[in-house]
Amino acid sequence: MGIERITSYLAGRWQDGDGEGARLFNPANDEVVATASTQGLDMGAAVQFARERGGALRALTFAERASILERMRAAMHQAREALIDAQVLNGGCTRSDAKFDIDGAILVFAHYAELGKALGDKRILADGEGIQLGRSPRFWGQHIHVPKHGVAVLINAFNFPTWGFAEKAACALLAGMPVIIKPATSTALTAYKAMQLLVEHSGAPEGALSFVGGSVGNLLDHMNGQDILSFTGSAATGQKLRSHSKIVASSIPVNVEADSLNAAVLGPDVDLGSDCMQLFLRDVAREITQKTGQKCTAVRRIMVPQTRVDDVIAELGARLGEIVIGDPNLKEVRMGPLSSKDQLHEVHAGIARLKKEAVVVHGDPDGPMKLVGVAPGVGCFFAPVLLRANDSWNANEVHSHEVFGPVATILPYSGKAEDAAGLVQKGEGGLVASVYSDDRDFTEQVTLGIAPFSGRVYLGSSKVLEHALGSGLVWPQCTHGGPGRAGGGEELGGLRGVLHFMQRTSIQGSRPMVEQIAGTKPA
Amino acid sequence: MGIERITSYLAGRWQDGDGEGARLFNPANDEVVATASTQGLDMGAAVQFARERGGALRALTFAERASILERMRAAMHQAREALIDAQVLNGGCTRSDAKFDIDGAILVFAHYAELGKALGDKRILADGEGIQLGRSPRFWGQHIHVPKHGVAVLINAFNFPTWGFAEKAACALLAGMPVIIKPATSTALTAYKAMQLLVEHSGAPEGALSFVGGSVGNLLDHMNGQDILSFTGSAATGQKLRSHSKIVASSIPVNVEADSLNAAVLGPDVDLGSDCMQLFLRDVAREITQKTGQKCTAVRRIMVPQTRVDDVIAELGARLGEIVIGDPNLKEVRMGPLSSKDQLHEVHAGIARLKKEAVVVHGDPDGPMKLVGVAPGVGCFFAPVLLRANDSWNANEVHSHEVFGPVATILPYSGKAEDAAGLVQKGEGGLVASVYSDDRDFTEQVTLGIAPFSGRVYLGSSKVLEHALGSGLVWPQCTHGGPGRAGGGEELGGLRGVLHFMQRTSIQGSRPMVEQIAGTKPA
Repeated sequence: MGIERITSYLAGRWQDGDGEGARLFNPANDEVVATASTQGLDMGAAVQFARERGGALRALTFAERASILERMRAAMHQAREALIDAQVLNGGCTRSDAKFDIDGAILVFAHYAELGKALGDKRILADGEGIQLGRSPRFWGQHIHVPKHGVAVLINAFNFPTWGFAEKAACALLAGMPVIIKPATSTALTAYKAMQLLVEHSGAPEGALSFVGGSVGNLLDHMNGQDILSFTGSAATGQKLRSHSKIVASSIPVNVEADSLNAAVLGPDVDLGSDCMQLFLRDVAREITQKTGQKCTAVRRIMVPQTRVDDVIAELGARLGEIVIGDPNLKEVRMGPLSSKDQLHEVHAGIARLKKEAVVVHGDPDGPMKLVGVAPGVGCFFAPVLLRANDSWNANEVHSHEVFGPVATILPYSGKAEDAAGLVQKGEGGLVASVYSDDRDFTEQVTLGIAPFSGRVYLGSSKVLEHALGSGLVWPQCTHGGPGRAGGGEELGGLRGVLHFMQRTSIQGSRPMVEQIAGTKPA
Repeated sequence: MGIERITSYLAGRWQDGDGEGARLFNPANDEVVATASTQGLDMGAAVQFARERGGALRALTFAERASILERMRAAMHQAREALIDAQVLNGGCTRSDAKFDIDGAILVFAHYAELGKALGDKRILADGEGIQLGRSPRFWGQHIHVPKHGVAVLINAFNFPTWGFAEKAACALLAGMPVIIKPATSTALTAYKAMQLLVEHSGAPEGALSFVGGSVGNLLDHMNGQDILSFTGSAATGQKLRSHSKIVASSIPVNVEADSLNAAVLGPDVDLGSDCMQLFLRDVAREITQKTGQKCTAVRRIMVPQTRVDDVIAELGARLGEIVIGDPNLKEVRMGPLSSKDQLHEVHAGIARLKKEAVVVHGDPDGPMKLVGVAPGVGCFFAPVLLRANDSWNANEVHSHEVFGPVATILPYSGKAEDAAGLVQKGEGGLVASVYSDDRDFTEQVTLGIAPFSGRVYLGSSKVLEHALGSGLVWPQCTHGGPGRAGGGEELGGLRGVLHFMQRTSIQGSRPMVEQIAGTKPA
């Protein structure tokens, strides 16, 4: 296979930057698979074009915008196999892991297409009931949501090259905002191929879709107060974006989804042979290893009652030990390499930090690996590692440093709900936490204790053994994001996610006038 | 009257800082009325005390938190006269302007006390309906709002010493968050006296109320990801707070309400003698001069059809010319001084900027003033000034520089709705814009054109002549805030304002378990 050239779709046409630019690799064999450059491309013109021409989305009804999403869904569904191939090649994903990303994107487009269809031929939305202001019903108030007159700049992480942008783009487009999609460069090949399809098949107004294939350059300098920046990636980059001078000066809303030390709590009631224990082990093993642990929702901390620690190490270690690692093209391989040499380096460095406060109880980060179908000495492979904290309450690295690979740490606790909650809280804000227990009081107490620190709480119990799909799955119907370390953002959640891309305005005036504008006139 | 000493209520006790600290003046006669220092006070201990002890609010029901607000309302109502006196003394407000602030605070506490009572004996809130996740109704999702485990730091502007903090504190306390109130030092006397009452009479748990009387010191360095910062004041300070290293590092939500070039649009249908014209003139004259123009919602830009410009200048000028300026203690005085020498200096400097693009058509910023009851050469007095832009579309200073005094600029336009909307948009985001017209299509077109740029749109028409109370009034039922230049924030709006101080979390699990936790179990 030759080396592909990734270009950018800006100002309504595909454009190539100067020079070779960045090299994109196949992390299973270290070969260069593509290059991408945005050097010399006019980001100011791109933003202006998107804002002015793509703003035509506002003239469409929600149902018309939904049709665009439906065509995007169909285009990705039709090209599913090619997109999977791209992600195996430039990402090192197994086919199953690649499907998880691409089907996730398809699911999001489908959900928002359906939602938009239900919203029908409106262009704005009423928010809540009308309000009598003052003593007479003559003077009336009504909140409405209207599309912003700007662009949504969507900067995504390397781990979900299509689901990542789909989550943000579906909401923005349905709200009536043009999008500028900027995937992480290291795994941009899949996003590039997806965007080619979407540009061709979406039927969106010119300017509604733009794509930055490579460095974002000075794009942020061209944003204004009607725009929105939505980012998924590292906390460090999130902080840099959030304090960017133009972002701050124009009060541009920034949605950040960043680091998260997602926790799984095992209840003291869960016996070794129980259904709930089976669910716990199945979920946690998957949440450590799916996408080689490179998921923002992956489990990083496992709170286990002191009395069960040895059992859990044995059982979980056994499951992790069964996982076949190697060439992601092979059917028998369950886990591919990390996505790049940089990630491999980061994971090794992260393990060293964790080892200051924890001991390795499964796997050997520095030992030899059993790999299937891989030539010796190549690739970014890393086998699962499980650690146990020496002192759960003082394991600061374990609670604060996210190692973005198949790595998790067991934190023994007393078995008391308040202690489990207290340990989860030490992560200082996460995307998701899970509680495995059949004891309703324990579950309720832990849940209410950790909810302020968690965007989502997943409850595993014997009742949902056959129905729950794991804490790592981000449903479009539910919000995704988390406070504090997780970035303080929120996206998805059905209509909630759309409203983040609209301006809420209160209209006050004579009742018939207000109702005419808001479209709330009683029949 | 002697010079008062303002102290701080931190860690459950009134504390005084070192040294004389800042001097607070009576801007009607330049006398020092109070001093305030926070030097040497332990802000870290104050934040920790508020977080740990004040967190007891979370154990209260909404109805119990509402009782605290009701007692706060009653305490302020009872001491209304003393609070008015304080604001006349340290603010230069007329009694009417002082009442506007204090009654605003009372109104807000009353609204949220009533709202909290209606929420009853819950401690958390369900958000939307339950959601079936997957094929079986066994696995269920529900969004909930829970109180954050932090403190709400509320930094307010000098112009509304009690309404300003009441808006933020009522929402935060009802949500279950302790508050640390920091008023602008220059007019802090009224806030200090109000806080003395509230500390004594609110019955709030220890630590739920704190007060910084003077500089905020290093308080922000002690915040974390469970806290919230809410700020009203200048855009420059808002930007500094928003990019503060600790705020950025912990993803602390920052609500900013800053500069706003609020616009009033006169429709082309409005004849000189009409009711709508009377409402326009009455509202705009008040919105220019109330609180000596020191209102975040004051009208700064007036869009007038070209053909009506001379009439409006004559009529509005006549109304502004009738306003009696002088000692705010006197009954006949309608407008007091600006709040400080700094503000007086800023207003003069701002007029100089506007004069590059506009001519003064009423008033003389540099001429002699007719003052009632004021000794010559003292005070921070400034008489109303009306300007007319030379070129409405290229008056960049007029569209971007807020002169925080009794100053507004007329911007002639074509009479077309799209031009009126286009000129309003040039303010790049405001708190409120108003449209005066009896033409429904014109009103609708302008409203939808400016809504994305406005937190609120106020519609004046002959129908509401006797009912509307002006664009400057912030109703607690409606949201307050605005995009872009206005800071990108939002507060109030009934329950909406409370939810900003809570964490939205999605709970997923077996349906009975989720419904037990969320309190949504069907009867």
